[in-house]
Amino acid sequence: MADKKLVEQITSMDVDFAQWYTDVCSKAELMSYSSVKGCMIIKPDGYAIWENIQNELDRRFKATGVRNVYMPMFIPESLLNKEKDHVEGFAPEVAWVTHGGLNELPERLCVRPTSETLFCDFYKDDIKSYRDLPKVYNQWCSVVRWEKETRPFLRSREFLWQEGHTAHATAEEAEERTVQMLNVYADFAEEFLAIPVIRGQKTEKERFAGAKATYTIEALMHDGKALQAGTSHNFGDGFAKAFEVQFTDKDNKLKYVHQTSWGVTTRLIGAIIMVHGDNSGLVLPPRVAPVQVCIVPIRQQDPTVLPAANELADALKAAGVRVKIDDSDKSPGWKFAEQEMRGIPLRLEIGPKDIQNGQCVLARRDNHEKCTVALTDVATAVPALLETIQNDMLERARTHRDAHTTIATTYEEFKDAVENKPGFVKAMWCEDRACEDKIKEETGATSRCMPFAQEEISDKCVCCGKPAKKLVIWGRAY
Amino acid sequence: MADKKLVEQITSMDVDFAQWYTDVCSKAELMSYSSVKGCMIIKPDGYAIWENIQNELDRRFKATGVRNVYMPMFIPESLLNKEKDHVEGFAPEVAWVTHGGLNELPERLCVRPTSETLFCDFYKDDIKSYRDLPKVYNQWCSVVRWEKETRPFLRSREFLWQEGHTAHATAEEAEERTVQMLNVYADFAEEFLAIPVIRGQKTEKERFAGAKATYTIEALMHDGKALQAGTSHNFGDGFAKAFEVQFTDKDNKLKYVHQTSWGVTTRLIGAIIMVHGDNSGLVLPPRVAPVQVCIVPIRQQDPTVLPAANELADALKAAGVRVKIDDSDKSPGWKFAEQEMRGIPLRLEIGPKDIQNGQCVLARRDNHEKCTVALTDVATAVPALLETIQNDMLERARTHRDAHTTIATTYEEFKDAVENKPGFVKAMWCEDRACEDKIKEETGATSRCMPFAQEEISDKCVCCGKPAKKLVIWGRAY
Repeated sequence: MADKKLVEQITSMDVDFAQWYTDVCSKAELMSYSSVKGCMIIKPDGYAIWENIQNELDRRFKATGVRNVYMPMFIPESLLNKEKDHVEGFAPEVAWVTHGGLNELPERLCVRPTSETLFCDFYKDDIKSYRDLPKVYNQWCSVVRWEKETRPFLRSREFLWQEGHTAHATAEEAEERTVQMLNVYADFAEEFLAIPVIRGQKTEKERFAGAKATYTIEALMHDGKALQAGTSHNFGDGFAKAFEVQFTDKDNKLKYVHQTSWGVTTRLIGAIIMVHGDNSGLVLPPRVAPVQVCIVPIRQQDPTVLPAANELADALKAAGVRVKIDDSDKSPGWKFAEQEMRGIPLRLEIGPKDIQNGQCVLARRDNHEKCTVALTDVATAVPALLETIQNDMLERARTHRDAHTTIATTYEEFKDAVENKPGFVKAMWCEDRACEDKIKEETGATSRCMPFAQEEISDKCVCCGKPAKKLVIWGRAY
Repeated sequence: MADKKLVEQITSMDVDFAQWYTDVCSKAELMSYSSVKGCMIIKPDGYAIWENIQNELDRRFKATGVRNVYMPMFIPESLLNKEKDHVEGFAPEVAWVTHGGLNELPERLCVRPTSETLFCDFYKDDIKSYRDLPKVYNQWCSVVRWEKETRPFLRSREFLWQEGHTAHATAEEAEERTVQMLNVYADFAEEFLAIPVIRGQKTEKERFAGAKATYTIEALMHDGKALQAGTSHNFGDGFAKAFEVQFTDKDNKLKYVHQTSWGVTTRLIGAIIMVHGDNSGLVLPPRVAPVQVCIVPIRQQDPTVLPAANELADALKAAGVRVKIDDSDKSPGWKFAEQEMRGIPLRLEIGPKDIQNGQCVLARRDNHEKCTVALTDVATAVPALLETIQNDMLERARTHRDAHTTIATTYEEFKDAVENKPGFVKAMWCEDRACEDKIKEETGATSRCMPFAQEEISDKCVCCGKPAKKLVIWGRAY
């Protein structure tokens, strides 16, 4: 009975997906609510996931020439106001510092919601010649956006992210970098988080404030809602003109730089939960899991058990596996439920009988399959099985997404799909903003992206019937 | 002539140490001033040093059981006000957020100057039983203190740091953790940054706001001024009582936890500059240096040179050395000066004649010594030489510190030492606050710490002549 309790505390995802989500966030001890409205505490098990995301992404960034920096967290109001579209996008949702110590400030400072303005202000002085280009800088930090409704990891007033900001001599190079970083995100999501994503371009309506083009990776959650998981923006020379970021080119002429920015956030943790989780709790892909294997000793009072468990742990550590032993005084059943709740990819059970037989039991978190492995094979079998789990999780998520993607060629089909078939809807669009607005208003679906992989599923716009110009992925979104 | 220019831009440290310091910060491209008064930009070469500090410290923390978390950056005013001494210490120097978006907030939020209050508020709910203890959490983040006078790395309105916050069942365990972390800092400073430190306890006057005991590591800069390089605080149960952080102990009684906190900041980068730097610029200890070896090809247009340089770089990378090749079109002399300014520990020069002779030249940054090494030995000679440099730098700094430490047994000797012999002054103290105040007022020296390694150099207080109780290290400080 007691063993079931931990699991029973979670709402079933079929009953109430939103409640299931927040249950997992709390019960898997990823986060906790704080006294600061709209801000959360990221607890050790949640932060360890973020550290793994950071390490892997940072490695991939640096392999493309990215260098890390740190900019101030405050933006003077006059600086924020320099680029018109940008300030209109962000001013309504920033936090303002008005007092420093006991004195009122001569000028209000906003807590950065994003740092384009600060990077431009820096680049204006730091870039003089074509020799100073490109600048390919990034920072890991927190940002603040005064959201009205918040949800753990998905939307909070403060969140952690990285923001890359680059400056280039030519428009072509800026465009190349924008797409390159989008592909870094997409590969990372698929290879490391086992989350399949659609790569595409945002419509003008959904573009970032101040951008000429925004690229996005879009993922499908288990409940059929879309999640924007990372974006990369090409600003052209718009910011450069507003901030006068100029350089002397090889031809001795003064030119404006072309800029990009790109970011992913702790929202990725929300995506992991909602793509892979189940009614027993979190399910972590092995590559991002802080603990990959939990060893549960059975009858651990037996003198042969803990030494054998420790020996296995050492062998696994030596094989590069992140492993822990749960030798607490809880019952094995309780430990199983806890390991499932926390999403540890693999459980290794070992008891006196196993030891006598020279074997142990491996139980997969993702599909609950069990198998028996010879003790002498553990150090090779476990890494291989972790790889299998990683691949199976990606394939399962891809199958789920494809099964929840509907093609609509008429507006009736479109409305029916959004209403009755949770998931992505593929439909053609005439590129007219009016159709996009109408679809959002009447169905609640937004254009997620115009995928790089364009198809012509019809020659008419799904909304107005006029000639279609683009295939668009639509969906209700987080 | 052109080769000298880079170096000539720096003020000599003997002429104006403060100006030399800011020159190095700028010319070595560690930082840049920003449009936000009192806040700086940490540029790639500076941030890479911080990344190395973070990685190494984080590794050492985790080896002692520390887990990382993330707390909100805002503290509601009512929460900050809960611990009396603490709020008195910090309220005059915090930045206040009064508006979120377009609305005035119901309660002001300060941008964290430190997070004791947030951790207490979190622990209050998270700790219920002795089974939940100890909590040994840490976060890497930025904090804000509205300083009036600022200097790069040493004192700025926003700075990066880590802050550990722990909770324990007993006073003994808290005290043990406080000292343990101080020793982690001290070992790190000496082993990784080659900065010798004095470990000791702060006097009551110099304690952290709200602490029962503050331990510190104190380092001596090249100009003879002291720098507090890291602190560790034991709060006893003071915060626990203010925030009602209680747990049910094994004896079933409700008890208050005992807490600690400890931190180091980007100020450590300032310490590296001021302990090791010279009139040619920065000098980085090899372990913390982002680039350890700079290969400078001589006559690089000769077809044998760049292939040989690349081969050496590959061999060094394979040996775990962080290496780069400067194959820009600048002259070798210019490259030498630049490598010196940036503090790269070792320069490897290779030209056509060297290749014919099967050798290359190694030039140390720390003492400008050169030696010739056979190309076949480079991959073993370089790591060994980097180790030698690391050790020599620590010894040189220790020798400098010891040569700049004066023993004073009378107040005349004391005043003469502070006035005329820049450095630490060792002198006995009666433990009376009045003497400490008088010394500070009359000489400008503050008590840096009561070192763990106590000696009795006299039986009288250096100030009042009454019976002495403690040996104190005094000095003018940053």
